[in-house]
Amino acid sequence: METHVYNQTADDEDQQAVRRIQRLSLHLTPLARPSSDENQLQLLTCARAKLNVSTSLLSGYMRGKHREIQEEVYQYFNSRPDLQTPVEISMDEHRELCMRQLLGLVREAGINPFKYVLEDPAKYFAIVEAAGSVDMSLGIKMGVQYSLWGGSVLNLGTKKHKDKYYDGIDNLEYPGCFAMTELHHGSNVQGLQTVATFDPITDEFIIDTPNDGAIKWWIGNAAVHGKFATVFAKLMLPTHDMKGVSDMGVHAFIVPIRDMKMHHTLRGIEIHDCGHKVGLNGVDNGALRFRSVRIPRDNLLNRFGDVSQDGKYTSSLPSIGKRFAATLGELVGGRVGLAYSSVSVLKIAVTIAVRYSLLRQQFGPPKQPEISILDYQSQQHKLMPMLASSYAFHFATLHLVEKYSEMKKSHDEQVVGDVHSLSAGLKAYVTSYTAKSLSLCREACGGHGYAAVNRFGSLRNDHDIFQTFEGDNTVLLQQVAADLLKQYKEKFQGGTLAVTWNYLRESMGTYLSQPNPVTARWEGEDHLRDPSFQLDAFRYRTSRLLQSVAVRLRKHSKTLGSFGAWNRCLNHLLTLSESHIESVILAKFIEAVQSCPEGNTRAALKLVCDLYALNRIWNDIGTYRNVDYVAPNKAKAIHKLTEYLSFQVRSVAKELVDSFDLPDHVTRAPISMQSEAYSQYTQYVGF
Amino acid sequence: METHVYNQTADDEDQQAVRRIQRLSLHLTPLARPSSDENQLQLLTCARAKLNVSTSLLSGYMRGKHREIQEEVYQYFNSRPDLQTPVEISMDEHRELCMRQLLGLVREAGINPFKYVLEDPAKYFAIVEAAGSVDMSLGIKMGVQYSLWGGSVLNLGTKKHKDKYYDGIDNLEYPGCFAMTELHHGSNVQGLQTVATFDPITDEFIIDTPNDGAIKWWIGNAAVHGKFATVFAKLMLPTHDMKGVSDMGVHAFIVPIRDMKMHHTLRGIEIHDCGHKVGLNGVDNGALRFRSVRIPRDNLLNRFGDVSQDGKYTSSLPSIGKRFAATLGELVGGRVGLAYSSVSVLKIAVTIAVRYSLLRQQFGPPKQPEISILDYQSQQHKLMPMLASSYAFHFATLHLVEKYSEMKKSHDEQVVGDVHSLSAGLKAYVTSYTAKSLSLCREACGGHGYAAVNRFGSLRNDHDIFQTFEGDNTVLLQQVAADLLKQYKEKFQGGTLAVTWNYLRESMGTYLSQPNPVTARWEGEDHLRDPSFQLDAFRYRTSRLLQSVAVRLRKHSKTLGSFGAWNRCLNHLLTLSESHIESVILAKFIEAVQSCPEGNTRAALKLVCDLYALNRIWNDIGTYRNVDYVAPNKAKAIHKLTEYLSFQVRSVAKELVDSFDLPDHVTRAPISMQSEAYSQYTQYVGF
Repeated sequence: METHVYNQTADDEDQQAVRRIQRLSLHLTPLARPSSDENQLQLLTCARAKLNVSTSLLSGYMRGKHREIQEEVYQYFNSRPDLQTPVEISMDEHRELCMRQLLGLVREAGINPFKYVLEDPAKYFAIVEAAGSVDMSLGIKMGVQYSLWGGSVLNLGTKKHKDKYYDGIDNLEYPGCFAMTELHHGSNVQGLQTVATFDPITDEFIIDTPNDGAIKWWIGNAAVHGKFATVFAKLMLPTHDMKGVSDMGVHAFIVPIRDMKMHHTLRGIEIHDCGHKVGLNGVDNGALRFRSVRIPRDNLLNRFGDVSQDGKYTSSLPSIGKRFAATLGELVGGRVGLAYSSVSVLKIAVTIAVRYSLLRQQFGPPKQPEISILDYQSQQHKLMPMLASSYAFHFATLHLVEKYSEMKKSHDEQVVGDVHSLSAGLKAYVTSYTAKSLSLCREACGGHGYAAVNRFGSLRNDHDIFQTFEGDNTVLLQQVAADLLKQYKEKFQGGTLAVTWNYLRESMGTYLSQPNPVTARWEGEDHLRDPSFQLDAFRYRTSRLLQSVAVRLRKHSKTLGSFGAWNRCLNHLLTLSESHIESVILAKFIEAVQSCPEGNTRAALKLVCDLYALNRIWNDIGTYRNVDYVAPNKAKAIHKLTEYLSFQVRSVAKELVDSFDLPDHVTRAPISMQSEAYSQYTQYVGF
Repeated sequence: METHVYNQTADDEDQQAVRRIQRLSLHLTPLARPSSDENQLQLLTCARAKLNVSTSLLSGYMRGKHREIQEEVYQYFNSRPDLQTPVEISMDEHRELCMRQLLGLVREAGINPFKYVLEDPAKYFAIVEAAGSVDMSLGIKMGVQYSLWGGSVLNLGTKKHKDKYYDGIDNLEYPGCFAMTELHHGSNVQGLQTVATFDPITDEFIIDTPNDGAIKWWIGNAAVHGKFATVFAKLMLPTHDMKGVSDMGVHAFIVPIRDMKMHHTLRGIEIHDCGHKVGLNGVDNGALRFRSVRIPRDNLLNRFGDVSQDGKYTSSLPSIGKRFAATLGELVGGRVGLAYSSVSVLKIAVTIAVRYSLLRQQFGPPKQPEISILDYQSQQHKLMPMLASSYAFHFATLHLVEKYSEMKKSHDEQVVGDVHSLSAGLKAYVTSYTAKSLSLCREACGGHGYAAVNRFGSLRNDHDIFQTFEGDNTVLLQQVAADLLKQYKEKFQGGTLAVTWNYLRESMGTYLSQPNPVTARWEGEDHLRDPSFQLDAFRYRTSRLLQSVAVRLRKHSKTLGSFGAWNRCLNHLLTLSESHIESVILAKFIEAVQSCPEGNTRAALKLVCDLYALNRIWNDIGTYRNVDYVAPNKAKAIHKLTEYLSFQVRSVAKELVDSFDLPDHVTRAPISMQSEAYSQYTQYVGF
């Protein structure tokens, strides 16, 4: 029957009319509670024609406004096979190639990402995303140069720094590093131990690594190419008391690390190569140790705090905590970029997996041709919710990028808070989902998925660290939870909530009452596919989790202190954050569906959105059942509908991945080529 | 509080006595239903001392009887640094190194695995496991040579083949391949298209690749080292009817592929290199095409079917289907080995992750030292159920190996069926779990987990394909489901069930009645930790899934045919199989706990077993809630107890990983060294 539905083409007007009537009649006679057997769903399946999705319309609706510059990036590398990363390459060669790729893009193709970092972040992220599709090492090397090293100069420095460094960063004459992480401290940035002591006599800072644990570690661009590093260190000012120095907290300093001409390592600096990584071996990560390295006072990035010639500290911000928060706050762009690029990796992987699953045939009914493996329910179960998630994440990260751009313009405090929390949550949620999906895609493509040329291995290895850098996901989710709790408190004190979480203020009260025993039994497809039911389910869960964890925290704090109480509730807090982020993603997806101007395209997006929503509800069905938010039969209906929607999405899976608009020279895997995939694969190995 | 409990040392007799009394008192006054707050659990935590686990006793109980030969393997490579695989190595060098490793082991260390393939399979698997810990490519290359190529000769051939090939296989003068998979056919072995046509005039078979899709693909040992291949092809016999030939089904043939002396590829054979893989690049996989390659009639591996000089077919088995099943049945050893080795990979990864998580400190209570990251609830949540699973899988795969050895001796039909289904299920379940865990371990170890030297990358890349080769996991789970359904049918026809699934026969009736509303409310720790409750929960779920899928299949078959019905229920069937395998694993774990002679060791195993059981129940709590097998408060109690048990297991996590008895030169990751881990890591990068 699957095949039957799939083969139906519904491109003439008659069929469209039939569909309209069918849809109308569904509205007039809403589905009764389905009987325990599946005949009803079967009837639905047969009664409905395949959705008529226009790839160009859908793709047009999805496409970001910076598609053109992405095309330029793709085209440049497509025209330069010598700059494409081969399947086997040594680490040293890969690092050199990656540098050449970056130089080529900037100096030859004339694409200069740096100016967009502040001016048009959306365009900047679009360039990084496209570069990452060519080789993720290139995307990350670019991010180190422009977003981390360059970004620290722009965002933490003042005019004198921009005047001095802008051009060199832009044209790559000043390759630089971002030296924050230490051997013993990654997540706990306030625990960094590197020190920068001011010497008023020479008007210099002295940078020192006090012990092995304080060696700067994993510093991108440090092992080979970097000339400068933005070094995060505790600022020590001389005092006249017994201690002799006063710790002013972590600040950022520009430290030259290699000679501008000869490229040798400068005196007092010891650099070692961190060596091979699981992936991203085109990026040269190094370890840095400082031994009384003197830098001019001007090298303090002094936007949020400054030291005068006589050693006096001035700042527009009142405390170490506020200054630290402002400093880190400026670095949030990295997270936005990672969330955005992670979606791009997911799209590439899903495209490869879906195209191959359509091509690959294995087994079939007795004495009939074999069927595509995407016609198996198990394969649909693996890939269709993943395809739906890529759509969901697409709209959510687009929204994040817009918010971030707005923040960079307005500096509105509420938007700042919103972007901080949203970027932390989306980065954590999306990268973690993508990481799992890459493994699933490899497995779903069987043996041929294991050929390096088919890309799942390198995508997974390169993407893996997205879960860790720019903020470990487990730590980021805790920041989201902390933010939610802060707002929960404010709510009860009458304060306002930031934009994103408005739903909590509006409906917290409703959600905390007992679930409605009547709606808990509604099982009709119309109801389950109603966005207001779906959103209510997501938000109900978040609100319950928020309220209950607040109560638990208060209780445990009395005996365990706040640190102990937080740890005792940690799993609960992480679940809360994930639930919240899922709600935000769903809300953005629903908006995108509703804003879509063309009917067929909207219907396709609605289908995908429904699958996203119901799959997530089903994944956490225990929670919903446990509070009787859904009755047992409703839970079953949700499960059944999820399988059915996966099956429906499968029938337009080709169009849905085509609409990602990734040309074959970007997806590259021979098994996913849009024509002659097997031949291209056999040719690749030499037949 | 965590710290407090952890710091308690309980090594003097007084404390032991106190514990005995406490334990006794718990028995005398069984726990009342816990109140909704957690005070009770807190009290329990404080009241109980840390378990006193003796690493040597636990390790002694775990250790297989073939530990000695594994030590020999470890020691040999430890004494030969030149044979150790470096972090960076090109594919070609890796393949040569891997061959040298194998030759060294066999010819220099005098370890000859081949003789154990039939004689003592447990010893054979132990050698392969140890070799795989040195470099997984070596373990797989060994498996290709002895288990696949060698195993096909032993198991599918007759005396003449053993006489001719045994020594060459054993001493590696005859490196060989196992050429089953084709470009278009992996899982569907019966769909293979390579043909072997008998030519009675020359008394030869003619091997042909009829089209590109039939090119043998992914053939290990083919790209570089192989001299022979066992080729699976459809046997075609000449007939006197119109068709001219008759297809006798898939048979195995020995085909020489390279010249014994000069090593050039033989006439009619085209070999290409399949190239880089995601992992296992020490194994040389190739693609083979045959153009009228003639081999003597004697090269048919003729144990299950033979062809006489005049072209007559004889077989002790009545049909193509039976012969095919018998042929594939002999290859089940590969699955046993993979399940067994997968557990070993899991143990290595868990050991590295747990040791690093104990070492690594990050954040802490205000003005106090930072705490180990394993003291965070979230880290316990990631790693402790995984540690428990490694124990569970250890005992289950040990059991599988024993059963397999028994089968190889007795050839008892019931044991054969049992091993077939158990090996399929355990291979699928364990490799899939390990694959996910390797990603989780990397992520749990943050940035340092991303250093290639710390091994998660190569373990994951090498292990990844365990999910696919020797039977795709999704396909294997379907075999388990089919077996369960067959037995379900037999049960109702009064037949006997195979050994493993006895529980279904015994209690299917009970399970299919409504859950007991009284026990559904029992929430006491004694009850939840009672093996009979745990087993009942696992088996109840399996029985329900089995019975409901049988009903659904019957219903859908009427409209969709049996293939369509199976596909319509595929997710359901896969869930059934996983549930069943989890039941078998739990049952074996409970047996292992109960058989443990020493009290403290038994208590530790019991703790780990309880975590395994309750974690799995909690993961599927939706199902249990949905049929009211557990009431809402019981579900909460299970969740709470799971977190608590994770915390308890954390307090003996060091002892539990130490008991895996993996020396530092096997785990190798600097961050997991048992002393001076950070220094060994900084030294590695050159400080």
